[in-house]
Amino acid sequence: MRVDLNADLGESFGRWRLGDDEALLPLVSSANVACGFHAGDPATLVRTCAAAAAQGVRIGAQVSYRDLAGFGRRFIDVTPDDLYADVLYQIGALDQIARSTGSRVSYVKPHGALYNAVVHHEEQAAAIVAAVVATGRELPVLGLSGSALLAAASAAGLRVIPEGFADRAYSPAGTLVPRTEPGAVLDDAATIAQRAVRMARDHQVVAIDGTVIDVAPESVCVHGDSPGAVAMASAVRAALAAAGVEIRSFADGA
Amino acid sequence: MRVDLNADLGESFGRWRLGDDEALLPLVSSANVACGFHAGDPATLVRTCAAAAAQGVRIGAQVSYRDLAGFGRRFIDVTPDDLYADVLYQIGALDQIARSTGSRVSYVKPHGALYNAVVHHEEQAAAIVAAVVATGRELPVLGLSGSALLAAASAAGLRVIPEGFADRAYSPAGTLVPRTEPGAVLDDAATIAQRAVRMARDHQVVAIDGTVIDVAPESVCVHGDSPGAVAMASAVRAALAAAGVEIRSFADGA
Amino acid sequence: MRVDLNADLGESFGRWRLGDDEALLPLVSSANVACGFHAGDPATLVRTCAAAAAQGVRIGAQVSYRDLAGFGRRFIDVTPDDLYADVLYQIGALDQIARSTGSRVSYVKPHGALYNAVVHHEEQAAAIVAAVVATGRELPVLGLSGSALLAAASAAGLRVIPEGFADRAYSPAGTLVPRTEPGAVLDDAATIAQRAVRMARDHQVVAIDGTVIDVAPESVCVHGDSPGAVAMASAVRAALAAAGVEIRSFADGA
Amino acid sequence: MRVDLNADLGESFGRWRLGDDEALLPLVSSANVACGFHAGDPATLVRTCAAAAAQGVRIGAQVSYRDLAGFGRRFIDVTPDDLYADVLYQIGALDQIARSTGSRVSYVKPHGALYNAVVHHEEQAAAIVAAVVATGRELPVLGLSGSALLAAASAAGLRVIPEGFADRAYSPAGTLVPRTEPGAVLDDAATIAQRAVRMARDHQVVAIDGTVIDVAPESVCVHGDSPGAVAMASAVRAALAAAGVEIRSFADGA
Repeated sequence: MRVDLNADLGESFGRWRLGDDEALLPLVSSANVACGFHAGDPATLVRTCAAAAAQGVRIGAQVSYRDLAGFGRRFIDVTPDDLYADVLYQIGALDQIARSTGSRVSYVKPHGALYNAVVHHEEQAAAIVAAVVATGRELPVLGLSGSALLAAASAAGLRVIPEGFADRAYSPAGTLVPRTEPGAVLDDAATIAQRAVRMARDHQVVAIDGTVIDVAPESVCVHGDSPGAVAMASAVRAALAAAGVEIRSFADGA
Repeated sequence: MRVDLNADLGESFGRWRLGDDEALLPLVSSANVACGFHAGDPATLVRTCAAAAAQGVRIGAQVSYRDLAGFGRRFIDVTPDDLYADVLYQIGALDQIARSTGSRVSYVKPHGALYNAVVHHEEQAAAIVAAVVATGRELPVLGLSGSALLAAASAAGLRVIPEGFADRAYSPAGTLVPRTEPGAVLDDAATIAQRAVRMARDHQVVAIDGTVIDVAPESVCVHGDSPGAVAMASAVRAALAAAGVEIRSFADGA
Repeated sequence: MRVDLNADLGESFGRWRLGDDEALLPLVSSANVACGFHAGDPATLVRTCAAAAAQGVRIGAQVSYRDLAGFGRRFIDVTPDDLYADVLYQIGALDQIARSTGSRVSYVKPHGALYNAVVHHEEQAAAIVAAVVATGRELPVLGLSGSALLAAASAAGLRVIPEGFADRAYSPAGTLVPRTEPGAVLDDAATIAQRAVRMARDHQVVAIDGTVIDVAPESVCVHGDSPGAVAMASAVRAALAAAGVEIRSFADGA
Repeated sequence: MRVDLNADLGESFGRWRLGDDEALLPLVSSANVACGFHAGDPATLVRTCAAAAAQGVRIGAQVSYRDLAGFGRRFIDVTPDDLYADVLYQIGALDQIARSTGSRVSYVKPHGALYNAVVHHEEQAAAIVAAVVATGRELPVLGLSGSALLAAASAAGLRVIPEGFADRAYSPAGTLVPRTEPGAVLDDAATIAQRAVRMARDHQVVAIDGTVIDVAPESVCVHGDSPGAVAMASAVRAALAAAGVEIRSFADGA
């Protein structure tokens, strides 16, 4: 039994630091590294990729809208042609840096508002997938189960990696409860750790109304920029280990 | 007898267009394509690389300081670590896009103020060379003969491509006359074309004081964003052909 | 009888030039000057404001989403608090420059996607209005008749200036036919000029289905960045003069 | 006996936070507020100005090179015309926001590499001064005693405010010891506080070689973004109070 643990890293920018990358990196198997469009100046990417490579953590391209001021958290109605080019540019930039540290980009995961948009936005989803296909590397795509993104990636013959969120409430239908609703975000590390185990081992999660629903995440996302992020990731990791679930990237062989 | 002809391309940005890329591309053998830091949004890079690839024109990464507002024409005292990362990022982004169009980045040429800085600035020259080395592809470096950049590239085992400027006046010492001095820039297409021929065929150029000096450019630069750019490049190309000098990229085999 | 003629100006950025500001400026009474967020580096703003001031053309703040790469033409789901601050920042920056040339910002007009968004987007419309109110200068707001923007501005006690588009087709309901539909944009200068006259003098426009509808624009917009922009603006100006309609800014006294 | 205490504030950008503005603001009499070019998105400026206005802290425009990635800490060889426009733009943007909170920009202080450049760079110093003059408000200019900036400001009839650095070592000639030399930056709060008192009360500072030199700062700078910044500013403030030195902005009347 195994699962991948992913977190956002490399989200500093120049003088500004964000997240405790050094503490978080040893806890995860996959690092979603910013590519410069919402965060991540090139020198930060070099440091982040070098650390990930040294610790055997897989590097994913956390592609984003071009929006430093908004940290990629605002929907932008970018055309498919522009988004295609933006995604290709970001993957290439990060992959070159990853290679310089002895690693590669091993998967692609959209960031922030782009992640949310491509749950339903078919044109933007298709643009991302077209860019991934254009790399010629058949990179896996990480996203929300049931999203337009994973559907398009799958249709294009790409491997898709559905992910689960141990610190987010689910509706009975299996979607995430919007952050604006009460109870949408959990903050108790022990509870979150137990949800991660149940997701990874039993393929179940308890929805906000108590319903037990089926989920089958190949990766569990732990958030990196909240105050208790490291403690939470530690708890999740420890609980998975105690439950006999191996933490390993989906990109590593069996 | 052969020589490479290079010009700057892909220097539009979003809504803003610059240069007549369509007319210029068929005239050159090497396209110095902007990488997004001084010009060149990703969609422009896709279009430019696709056109270059379709016409068999080699793609070079025209790496720059991060300075859209200044078009990369202002010296920036960036640290070597940051410049190294910036250059690696730019090469990777462009190379990914070039590959998606069936081509590759075949060489590296610094742009604008960075080009001028690394004539003498050894730390910045070393940072660029380190980034080129870090790509692992032994890409040739295009620059000014006698520059710190070419010295560092050569010392690192990289192929160096000295270039000549048919439309710029030379001092008797073989350096370019600064643009601020009278007579520094030539604008008569016939004169420029004959200088290009003499450079490429005879390895000579007449300096501003009448001295004949030795030059050995493997590439001749034609500027792309001046009003008469296309006419000038056409004249240079025609004169070289008439003189029996083949126009072919240094990156293409013998 | 009088009407204002407005056009977008100052939309260059650094090395990139856009629009023929010198030719267009003498033809209009109001210049919607970019404020740096979608176009308009500060040196361009200084030049543009100086020219407008010298020719007695009113300066308006053409506020935009922060989006140089997209030229402000992509909807961005920015929060009201951020948009409020962005608009205030842009008005202040431009007004300082306008004052240094002996003029002032005399009105506010949103640009591009923001203009389109606030036809219906009440939160963004309210944010713009709040920023205009926060300047304490009771600046008029230029926009589409019937828009959420003008409704909010009016409710806040601001003067609203509805504008008409002589080169755009109208639906029978009085809205603009979307650019994506056939016939949405007119390009015959004589036709456009006559539509401008009928709008300004008779307060009528012929809709795309032939219906004659009532419009009451206090300003007519002429586009500045299309190939025939200057010819079109000239034709509009000449036709208005011939029809006895004075071209004068709404900001100038009776 | 009185002195001004100034610190850099408003240096967050979007998602990235920098400095403990809330804790620092009550300790100073002047806030050098970022203007968006090296830091400080508009929403941050609104918050910062509102807090400064509420606490009676004077707002200064901390103008910078346009360099978010480098936090304004890299020299940029910008032309005087561009720098003039950039400074005017920044002052105007911040002043509009300051006015919306009931305050104004009361002075101008260059940031980072621009601050260092205009110690000697006469063209850039002149460009800043020209921009300040162009505001028509005769704003005081804060800078290093003996700098080209203060000389140019003084020659232009502007009030100049020389500042002292309690946490920096001075050479016997009265210049700052470069940060790259050992002992250049002090970190003991008690020592720094006593130096501040001696500067403000006795107009003396002990240079790095033990020489006692004369200084006459009207403002003392406390740094805001180091780990011990708040403790250091508290110690300086307490020591000045204990020594009978009133902390009051130079912009407030006698």
